[in-house]
Amino acid sequence: MSEPIIQSLLDADFYKFTMGQFVFHRYPNISVVYRFKCRTKGVRLADVIDLGRLREELDHVRTLRVNKSELHYLRGTNEYSERMFKEDYLVFLGGLKLPMYQLSAENGDILLEFHGPWAEAIYWETIALAILNELYYEATTKHLSRFERECLYAEGRMRLAKKIKNLRRHPRITFIEFGTRRRFSRAWQVEVTRTLAEEMPSEQFRGTSNTKLAMDLGLLPMGTAAHELDMVMSGIFSSTDDELRGSHNRVLREWWDEYGDGLSIALTDTFGTDFFFRDMTREQAFAWKGLRQDSGDPIECGERAIQFYASHGVDASKKLFIPSDGLDIDKILAIDAALYGRIGLSYGWGTDLTNDLGLKPLSLVVKAVRANGNGLVKLSDNLAKATGDPKDVERYKRVFGYAVNAFEECKY
Amino acid sequence: MSEPIIQSLLDADFYKFTMGQFVFHRYPNISVVYRFKCRTKGVRLADVIDLGRLREELDHVRTLRVNKSELHYLRGTNEYSERMFKEDYLVFLGGLKLPMYQLSAENGDILLEFHGPWAEAIYWETIALAILNELYYEATTKHLSRFERECLYAEGRMRLAKKIKNLRRHPRITFIEFGTRRRFSRAWQVEVTRTLAEEMPSEQFRGTSNTKLAMDLGLLPMGTAAHELDMVMSGIFSSTDDELRGSHNRVLREWWDEYGDGLSIALTDTFGTDFFFRDMTREQAFAWKGLRQDSGDPIECGERAIQFYASHGVDASKKLFIPSDGLDIDKILAIDAALYGRIGLSYGWGTDLTNDLGLKPLSLVVKAVRANGNGLVKLSDNLAKATGDPKDVERYKRVFGYAVNAFEECKY
Repeated sequence: MSEPIIQSLLDADFYKFTMGQFVFHRYPNISVVYRFKCRTKGVRLADVIDLGRLREELDHVRTLRVNKSELHYLRGTNEYSERMFKEDYLVFLGGLKLPMYQLSAENGDILLEFHGPWAEAIYWETIALAILNELYYEATTKHLSRFERECLYAEGRMRLAKKIKNLRRHPRITFIEFGTRRRFSRAWQVEVTRTLAEEMPSEQFRGTSNTKLAMDLGLLPMGTAAHELDMVMSGIFSSTDDELRGSHNRVLREWWDEYGDGLSIALTDTFGTDFFFRDMTREQAFAWKGLRQDSGDPIECGERAIQFYASHGVDASKKLFIPSDGLDIDKILAIDAALYGRIGLSYGWGTDLTNDLGLKPLSLVVKAVRANGNGLVKLSDNLAKATGDPKDVERYKRVFGYAVNAFEECKY
Repeated sequence: MSEPIIQSLLDADFYKFTMGQFVFHRYPNISVVYRFKCRTKGVRLADVIDLGRLREELDHVRTLRVNKSELHYLRGTNEYSERMFKEDYLVFLGGLKLPMYQLSAENGDILLEFHGPWAEAIYWETIALAILNELYYEATTKHLSRFERECLYAEGRMRLAKKIKNLRRHPRITFIEFGTRRRFSRAWQVEVTRTLAEEMPSEQFRGTSNTKLAMDLGLLPMGTAAHELDMVMSGIFSSTDDELRGSHNRVLREWWDEYGDGLSIALTDTFGTDFFFRDMTREQAFAWKGLRQDSGDPIECGERAIQFYASHGVDASKKLFIPSDGLDIDKILAIDAALYGRIGLSYGWGTDLTNDLGLKPLSLVVKAVRANGNGLVKLSDNLAKATGDPKDVERYKRVFGYAVNAFEECKY
């Protein structure tokens, strides 16, 4: 191993730390299992990625510790609320060593799991994805000649230049770089994000979800919560159907208790958007800053959000709607054309930003699959993104009144 | 200019920020003048350093701003006290642009001054010194062949290795890297400091005075106050002899008000150590953590400190004594042999650490020379380090009861 891919535990999405503190304060010892999955059909990942290399990279991550400067940086983060990271959490983080992984291969698939207390295992997700992604592209491009490799980066730069040119023509479009988990490589993410910071005004390019990159480049670290929060909480509170159904709003209430309005962006689709809008209360509609949409049709969801706010007498144009599902510039422009002015908009732009060099991107995920001994379920608004054992999925569909039948292959 | 020497306003000594906040809170608009001086005899700096290059470097510094991550880092610094940097100061720092400089050459000397409100001009000192030093060595080594240049660094590494070997034999010696102002180059300071962090236990290598290096390497940023604090304060409070004499203890009291015990290391020699030990009160002797010694004989000064503490019934072994004047390994070992166990020791090791590659180091300083319209004076325990107009020096000698006649050419 020349230079390890992950060189800092902060080379991870910011939401891992915002959720991480929530978990540390409330449910640190809930035992969880996270599992890696490649959603892209026909890719035999275990035949491409060398498992020894993968082991080396994962082992290296377990030698990393959050250092003094990184703790200073997090302690000093005040854009969302004063002292959003509390001292007890920072002490914990300073001593954190990531738990062991379980790795094997079967029929061309890589089987990778992380077991441990939620407070510790939570940090693997985006780190493992970034490693798997980089190793995959390293392996698939290693046959390239020097010049072919230069052409690959040239193609990436031309594509990025085209995006920037397009965005400059639409200065009202604001976005966040969300592509850590799917980046072509760490170096390429650095280049893309640095370029955006240099070329675009900060009113338009708002920041990055990557904590270390935000720290290194002086950008705003951005992110709030992920599906895993709803999912694990539903695994903890699932003894009765009512408790299971109630777990969703419990997340909203406890999240508010932890951070107040600073991080009050709710994810709409864990158990389907229908349920979400039935479940969010009028008071929450007023109080929370906005919503993040991560599956289904973003314009349709935006329209429903506008209706939802209107039905509660809330001015939707004062709320934020953040599409983050498989965006590219055309989608962004279409959403903007449909919704601009009626609801606040910002875009969480991932794979198409940090892995757009002309190679086919993979749809890799690390999902929480068990908590507290229970199988976990995500329904989402696209059944291609649903996870969980069929029996559990049936129960969740029933409990959450889920009636979606949409299925669309994940582009990313 | 390929890569600018100074790439961050935090590439400066930490004490500039601890003093900077003190000044911002109390005396922001006092007009001050800082002046560059080369104390090394026989060096015609203006014949060596290209003034155009120097201008480019200084101009570049004026384009720099303290960025979001650097503010996070400072906000999160909590080793000395909780929230040692207050929000009003961080807001000021986030908007800071360094004031203009005045540059000319005369008879081979570089005349460089910084005029401005104290709150802004204070940040130039170590930055300007680092630039001048690096440009000097760049110019004096540009004739070297590739191999000769490699040999220069090889010599530097051998000398560093020897120091490390020696220090490992004396694990009770703890020290801080203090060499920003006299570094051979930024890159060399990074290499030396990184190497020390990797090779020495953190109990022995305690940190660095360079804020950006501390941030980048996850080390403890260290530093408290400099002579300029006593000097400028004496310029502000100098209308009567009593007020002038009282300005010294006023600094101690106001510094304590600003930071409490966290940064309570007093500098002993601004107006001579005799006066210092007459002036520090019993209560201050008890409360303050310790002393920094920056001129005269360190062992003699240490002995006096031990006596001073004893005379007030203070256990000197619980206090910290930090020699920081022209140290090298032999001096450190000699001080250790004489004082260890009787008073706490840590060493501020500068020039000999970051500029020891076999070339002759320069003794460059940037000193506050005027404040509030008054000429400033430093006496110190070595008249070679004294500064000020003769008339002012005479007044200060009289007011502070100064009776030293020692004169020793500054090694660094």
